[in-house]
Amino acid sequence: MNRKELIGQIREKKSFLCVGLDTDIQKIPAFLLNEEDPVFEFNKQIIDATREFAVAYKINTAFYESRGIEGWKSLIKTWEYLPKDCFSIADAKRGDIGNTSEMYAKAFFNIESSGMSFDSVTVAPYMGADSVKPFLKFPEKWAIILALTSNEGSKDFQYLSSDGNMLFESVLQKSGEWGSKENIMFVVGATRGEDFLTIRKHVPDHFLLVPGVGAQGGSLDEVCRYGMNKECGLLVNSSRAIIYASSGTDFAEAAAAGAQAVQQEMEKWVREL
Amino acid sequence: MNRKELIGQIREKKSFLCVGLDTDIQKIPAFLLNEEDPVFEFNKQIIDATREFAVAYKINTAFYESRGIEGWKSLIKTWEYLPKDCFSIADAKRGDIGNTSEMYAKAFFNIESSGMSFDSVTVAPYMGADSVKPFLKFPEKWAIILALTSNEGSKDFQYLSSDGNMLFESVLQKSGEWGSKENIMFVVGATRGEDFLTIRKHVPDHFLLVPGVGAQGGSLDEVCRYGMNKECGLLVNSSRAIIYASSGTDFAEAAAAGAQAVQQEMEKWVREL
Repeated sequence: MNRKELIGQIREKKSFLCVGLDTDIQKIPAFLLNEEDPVFEFNKQIIDATREFAVAYKINTAFYESRGIEGWKSLIKTWEYLPKDCFSIADAKRGDIGNTSEMYAKAFFNIESSGMSFDSVTVAPYMGADSVKPFLKFPEKWAIILALTSNEGSKDFQYLSSDGNMLFESVLQKSGEWGSKENIMFVVGATRGEDFLTIRKHVPDHFLLVPGVGAQGGSLDEVCRYGMNKECGLLVNSSRAIIYASSGTDFAEAAAAGAQAVQQEMEKWVREL
Repeated sequence: MNRKELIGQIREKKSFLCVGLDTDIQKIPAFLLNEEDPVFEFNKQIIDATREFAVAYKINTAFYESRGIEGWKSLIKTWEYLPKDCFSIADAKRGDIGNTSEMYAKAFFNIESSGMSFDSVTVAPYMGADSVKPFLKFPEKWAIILALTSNEGSKDFQYLSSDGNMLFESVLQKSGEWGSKENIMFVVGATRGEDFLTIRKHVPDHFLLVPGVGAQGGSLDEVCRYGMNKECGLLVNSSRAIIYASSGTDFAEAAAAGAQAVQQEMEKWVREL
């Protein structure tokens, strides 16, 4: 999905919600465990219940990889089931030397090779240009580069200052040499609204993927006030707060209600674009 | 495998060679493509041919993931076939917020969950403490943290200087708060021998995993001169130069000869420990 199509979806659905499928087999409702593939069945019902309110789905690959072959099967089936009008994210935090990143790009973008073709992959920047560029060779595919994350450990290195720039600022600047707002987004944690001002100084036009609203403690209003640009420029992710809204047989209805509540908050902001 | 056992293996085999199984189905000898699982068959013969000369095997997971379910099957079979007296590395460059890194740790360490239990996983440090610590909760398992990599893109961020420390030095220092020489190693690229002096100033006792000798252009002598400590402290990886030494039916013999040649170079250094 290209940038124009994504912005079109946001305007149409009046939403920039990304639903995070961090599906933990130990947390899904017990009655689903009788299904042949409980994780896929859970995801399917969550997707059906939320697709009207969401413009993107983010699959956290770790939760699938932890279950070996069975998990990988659930991952592929879930990718296949994602609505084609939604932007798909493999949240895999990959990155390695060039010839290895090419293989990771194949894993998530090349359906003939791997059985999957996401719109985007999250990528760690530590290894620099050649670890990211292989993901940018695929037309209408995206690398979503970690800039400023929302976890406690983000303070360890991301704020280190060098020549007047913090590390996450250097990441934002450098990536301009690698790609454009048409194929690069950034992960920006939502816990500190003021950081968005710094981010937008460097990348006024790029889309930002914002985790950390909900379970991780960020505020949607603050994110929008400081992070939104004139074409929205935000995908705000919510995982646990939506998918685990209820642990009973009404889990899908509860997820729908949760997603709708977020979408309604977002609608105010999209109307002003 | 714990540190003492690893050092014991190094002394016994007079080798600190790690063979990298970056197995690309498009590069293996054509006659193997008739096998049910050509990648596993290739790896099996490479392992049989090199196990006498190697103390470790590093599986580059990207090459397996790129082939979806089939690749994941080859990965698990290869892990199962690794000799138990060799140190096993899942070269996966993972790292995410705490609850997600826990899932990655399960993927590579918890055999009940994923079907695999490597001795170690390579980990990207960008997200800080909570992205690494979940890997350290498993007894006798290791996190191998990216410090200074051997690729061109390593110059983008790893040498950025903050308060007199380059980023890779901050990574070395911080990690002391997370674990010890018993459960942390570092990836250190081999293309600049002088960098080892800086590395050893910060982590005199830790093991270093050194890629980049061979195809990536590093010199073994330089690595040993500057990087070795009194308990060896090095695992030197060679992938393409060994596994693709011949593209004919003699590929395994050629790999054995390649591994033996490196082992013989290493023997001089191990004798002096």
